[in-house]
Formats: sequence, structure tokens, C-alpha cells
Amino acid sequence: MTPKGFLASGWNVGIKDDTLDFGSIHSSVPASAGCMFTRNNFPGNPVIVGREHAKSGRLQTIVVNSKNSNVATGPDGLKLARQTCVWTAEALGTKPELVLPSSTGVIGRPMPEEKIRAACQSLKAKLTGADFDLFSRAIMTTDTRPKLRSVQLKSGITITACAKGSGMIEPNMATMLAYAATDASITPEDLQRLVRCAVDRTFNRVSVDSDTSTSDTFVCLANGASNVAVNFSNEAADAWNHGDLPVPEKLPGLNRESEEFALGFGHLCLELAREIARDGEGATKLIEVQVTEARDRQQAVKIARSIVNSPLVKTAVYGADPNWGRLVMAVGKVFDEPVPIENLKIFFGDQPLRGAGPDALKTLSAYLKNREVTIRVSLGTGRARETVWGCDLTQEYVHINADYTT
Amino acid sequence: MTPKGFLASGWNVGIKDDTLDFGSIHSSVPASAGCMFTRNNFPGNPVIVGREHAKSGRLQTIVVNSKNSNVATGPDGLKLARQTCVWTAEALGTKPELVLPSSTGVIGRPMPEEKIRAACQSLKAKLTGADFDLFSRAIMTTDTRPKLRSVQLKSGITITACAKGSGMIEPNMATMLAYAATDASITPEDLQRLVRCAVDRTFNRVSVDSDTSTSDTFVCLANGASNVAVNFSNEAADAWNHGDLPVPEKLPGLNRESEEFALGFGHLCLELAREIARDGEGATKLIEVQVTEARDRQQAVKIARSIVNSPLVKTAVYGADPNWGRLVMAVGKVFDEPVPIENLKIFFGDQPLRGAGPDALKTLSAYLKNREVTIRVSLGTGRARETVWGCDLTQEYVHINADYTT
Repeated sequence: MTPKGFLASGWNVGIKDDTLDFGSIHSSVPASAGCMFTRNNFPGNPVIVGREHAKSGRLQTIVVNSKNSNVATGPDGLKLARQTCVWTAEALGTKPELVLPSSTGVIGRPMPEEKIRAACQSLKAKLTGADFDLFSRAIMTTDTRPKLRSVQLKSGITITACAKGSGMIEPNMATMLAYAATDASITPEDLQRLVRCAVDRTFNRVSVDSDTSTSDTFVCLANGASNVAVNFSNEAADAWNHGDLPVPEKLPGLNRESEEFALGFGHLCLELAREIARDGEGATKLIEVQVTEARDRQQAVKIARSIVNSPLVKTAVYGADPNWGRLVMAVGKVFDEPVPIENLKIFFGDQPLRGAGPDALKTLSAYLKNREVTIRVSLGTGRARETVWGCDLTQEYVHINADYTT
Repeated sequence: MTPKGFLASGWNVGIKDDTLDFGSIHSSVPASAGCMFTRNNFPGNPVIVGREHAKSGRLQTIVVNSKNSNVATGPDGLKLARQTCVWTAEALGTKPELVLPSSTGVIGRPMPEEKIRAACQSLKAKLTGADFDLFSRAIMTTDTRPKLRSVQLKSGITITACAKGSGMIEPNMATMLAYAATDASITPEDLQRLVRCAVDRTFNRVSVDSDTSTSDTFVCLANGASNVAVNFSNEAADAWNHGDLPVPEKLPGLNRESEEFALGFGHLCLELAREIARDGEGATKLIEVQVTEARDRQQAVKIARSIVNSPLVKTAVYGADPNWGRLVMAVGKVFDEPVPIENLKIFFGDQPLRGAGPDALKTLSAYLKNREVTIRVSLGTGRARETVWGCDLTQEYVHINADYTT
């Protein structure tokens, strides 16, 4: 079940070892493109080129390598990112400006130019089917499993999306790398609007370790091959942006197909974002933090991020320790958002923390042994809410990151 | 070598187990007091009371317990913090408003009222000498060693200071708990001014884990028993605040004794602040981050904090991995302070990272195996500089914090 008119694959080109390290998604025709990139001030070279090419709202091909991020590699690295698009376009008979390059992996190491060139030149031969599974594996770094989801809508539209995450994850545009392909027919403007809504409330609400990568990229290609036309209006975007939920239950002013498409796309993003948090480096648990009864969404998200990024909260969840104090600390350290402590209510799952006796503490601790933990903090200052996702902090995170390159 | 006119001690009152958990510093006469407290929005009850009592600029007695922080313990906790001052004043024949209470330890557990009352009632009997060593041990929590320093100045003034730190450390006023006692004669206004200058550039530049405690307290008592009068002018404060160094080399407009006192006090704070970073929970290394050639000090300190708090930088230092890319990421993720990457220079010790070949990488990695590591980042955007201190992130940090209360 993959969208019509797309080819995809992943293979090994020997960038570092013999594991999958190169992949491509290619639409049979130029597609509408919605893209978001990292806000890190030192974006990778592929992000620089990708931004330029995405401006037109039209893209046809995504080429990605793992094992080397082509970040901080100087003018040579930038030249190679451009050249990758030229080689790709030559191989597939398209135009360089319709190619979006992506790279992930170690920062500051020269890219193996000849291997990348050979990889591009083999694109035609390798892209024989729609193997999104191989593609989703080729973009992995420290991910322990691929993250790939598809949905077929009643309208006949199919959306397939995949992502990689794991470490250096507090995206401020998207996650490290996430790609979606759909055969919906939608204008670039509407697609971009939808991507912004969905990414902002899903991928941009994930934090594994508060470190914002230099490579974060989200790209959605919509090639129209299903012949089902959908749209996404400003009115729908407003409703999404001002709504309480990461993905709304319904959207005003859209016809049935368009609403189905927008919500389906949103849920796909939500699922992948949660998968990224769940598969954070060394993580044993997915943590969902809901801040409710906030003055406004800005207050809610600030406090939610403070909680989900607190090393002491993350280690307490890892140790299944119902530590009310650390949550109070994490709420209180958002200096510019004071909230009255009398109003503060904190729940693990459905159970309140404050005043929990020995038996309740045992129940709470048992709850924290689950693989998914929800922390709900009610501020009592209004009616807004926000949700963010993260993971626990474990010895394994330290191990992975203390031994990564040398 | 302790300041004249002070008594100090530490002992066990059985708050949790049989280790030292209660201590006091007591001046024979009311002293000038300079204090700074946490900016966490949920300050502990002792901090609430301490702020009230510190307002007058006069204090005589500090009483501290470890093992329970009296934070988020409701009206009973606040009442107990006030009562602690009453009991202390009764025992020592002083006034409650001259007592500063402090507590550190677990958050959100009721304080053992009877044990605290008994502790206060035994103050007279326990305070028989100036045993700052016992005091500095009684305030420890997960600290692996006491942090105590004294200096005797040529003028005849003595300063003794001690601190505790370890976890939940990104002070925004002071560290968790730090106390200084001196027999200098100085007005409360001048002392407060000096405390602000020194603490801001030392304790407030330390981060173990980016978590800001609810109990951070710094108190300095100056009782005048040396009969050496010193002052600290606005002019001197300006010079300190606008200077490049954590502690300046000299200060304008002060006589010799006053300059010696201010700088001596500053260096004591600096030493203790570094000790807190070095002894961070699970830490094996002290990390000093110097950001130089910044546009202004605000830019420098923002970027320095981003580096010293980055889990990926901290684990790279732990693993002795000269990972240029993670430093670039940590500089770049300060979205509101873009710096041109061409100008960016990064050094471990004296060695530049960019373009380091295999031999240089070996040397860099060897350097990172030291117990003290200096990371210098030159932004090339101006002439300001700032220094912050932190520590590496290890499996032991996770172990300590995953197993702390339950």
C-alpha cells in the first residue's frame, strides 16, 4: 500500500561500512512539495540547497545518505550537495532544482565524493519499485528500528511517511529527517500550509535530549497520481493552530476528502513523532507531557518542554520514582511563567501525585514501569493545553554518546 | 584559621539516618548580611522566610538541615520554617528575625517537627567552637566531599566559605547552598553589592544538569570582629560587572584593604563554584567553557550555557571524543544569536579543533582525558567574553538520579 506514481529504495554505497546508507524517493512527475527545515544557525549543506530548491513548491526526487551529515564541511561540502542534485537529475532525466538532498550522520567530516557520485549514477537501476521499507532503513543512524507508516484513505488517496530520529533531537522545524509521499492532488501553497500545521504540533513537540540538530528536514511530496483533488484553507489552518489537540478531531470549511486527507496526514505525523520519542537514544519509555489549564498555549508549551527536558524528571521516570518534587522544580524553573503553586495539580496517568500515601506511591511507581508514561500538569491559570513527547534518560544514552565517533 | 567571633558546627539529629544532617553558623553579634536566593518560582519555605529576614541586611545565625528540603510542604512547612527561627533565637538569646533557615534534600515530604525543635534547643550546647568543617559536612547531600575554603588577608580579615552542590544545579541566584562568614566590618549595602557581583559571575555560571533548585541560597555574614573596615562602591561594582573575568584583577576606587577583601571574597566564590561543578552528580571531569570575541556578554553567556548544558557535548567530553560537530550544533541551536560559521573557532585547551588530522585528533582525545577540560569558543563577532562551568554526563549521573528516593 504505497502512493501511486512513486519509486523508492535504499541500498549500500559504502560510505562507512556495508549497512544501508543511501536512499531515494522519486515521483514520476514533478510534485507539490511542503518542506520544513532546522532552525539551527549552522544548517547542513543539504539543508541550504534543499531550502533553495523547495522555494518553488515543486520537487520530484529526494536523495538521502546516512553515516555523514555533510554539515560544517565548508565550500566543498556545499558544492557536493549541489552536485548531488545535478548527478541525480542526469541519472533520472529531470532537473537539478527538482531534487532535494538530505544527509545525516557525523558532523564535520568530508563527504566521500566518488561514492556519492556513483550512488547517484546508479539511481535509475536501483529505483525499480516502491520499496519505502528499504528507504526507511537506509536513513537510520542510532535508531533501533525503522519508522514507517502508510494510510489509505476512503477517497482513494494514499499517504506513506517515514522518519528517523534517535539523538540530537529537539527539532524546531521538524525531526532530523522525515519524508512523506502521497498521490493526493494539492497545490504547493495548501500543502505547505498543512505541513506547517501538522509538523508544528507533532515533530516540533518532540525532545529526546534538547539538542537541535543541524540537519532537521521534513519533506512531503504530493504528485496528484490518485486524481483526487484536496485543499487546505487558511480557515482550517487557523482552527488547527488554535485547537487544543495535536491533531484536531475535525476541521471547518473543508470538503470530506480534504478533511480526511488533512487529518490522516496529521495522524501519520503524530505517530511518527511519538515513535521518534519512544526510540530516543537509550530510551526505555515514551513520556507524554500534557500541560492543561494554562493561560495560553505558549505558557503550556514552555512548561511542558521544561518538564520533558529535565534530566531529573527523565531519570525519575527511568527509575519509576513518583518524584513530585522534581516535577514542581521543573515547573518552577520557567522563571518567566510563574504559576500559583496552590493551583498546581500533577498526575501520572490518572493518579494525582500530591499527598499520595505509601500505597498510592506504590501504585504510582507501578504505573511508571509502563513503556508509555503520561505526565499531566494542570496549572489552573486558564483553559489552554499543549502536549509534548520525550523519553527517559538512561545509562545507555550516555554509553551511546560517549562512544559515538572516535 | 576562621573569622573571629563566629561559632560553627554540624551534627546528627536523625532526620533520615545517622549521618550529619544539621548545622549552624552563629555570630557573637548581629552581622551585616548579603544574600541571594533561587529564582525558581516555587521557592522552598526556608527561602521564603530567609528572604523576609534578609531584607533588613542584618543576620546573626544560620541554621541548616539536609535530608529534607522543606519545599512544597504547604502551610505546615512554612510554619515550621518560621518556628525554627523562634526556637533558634530562644536557644541562643537572639531574635527570630536575625535567623536564616535553610534546608536541602528531598522535596515534598513533611519535615520531622520534633527533631528540628530538639536540634534547635541543643544549639547552645553544640556551638562550642568554630568547626566549619563539621558544618560543611552536615549540609552535604549527594556531594562526594565537603567544599570549604578559608583565606586570611594581609589586612587581618579572615573569610571562610563553604558550599554544597551536586545535582539540580543550574543556579540562577546562587548554588543550592553556600555560606560565607567573615570578620570584616562592612555595611549591609556594600556587602550585598559585593555578593551580587561575585555570585553572579561564579555560582550563577555553574550548571550541572540545567535544573534550577527550589532551595538555592547564598548568605554571607560579616560581623566586624576584625575591626578592619572595608567598603565596596558602586564604581567597583560597575567595573566588576562589565569586566571580562569572573573575578577582576583589580578594582578601581577602593583602598587597599577593601580591594583585597573584595577580590579575596570573589576568588573564594570562584573556587567553591568550580568545586560544585567538579563534584556534580556522577561527574568525572570539570568542564570550563570560555566564549570569547562575542558581541556582548549576554551573547557570550547564552552560547556558553548552551554548550555546557548540551547532553551531547557532555557525553563527548566524558568519552574523550573531540567532537567538533557537537560543539557546532550547540552553538548553532541558540536560535536568537546567529554567528557566522566562518568566524567560529573552537579549541580544546590550546588546540584548535577544525581541520584536525588523525594525529591532532589523538592529541585532542588525550587532552580530554584530563580531569579539567577547557573548551574555548571564539565567535569573532566582538570583544566580550564569559566563562561558565559544568561537568560531564555519565552513567553514574543516571544511576544516582534513577534511584534517589523510592
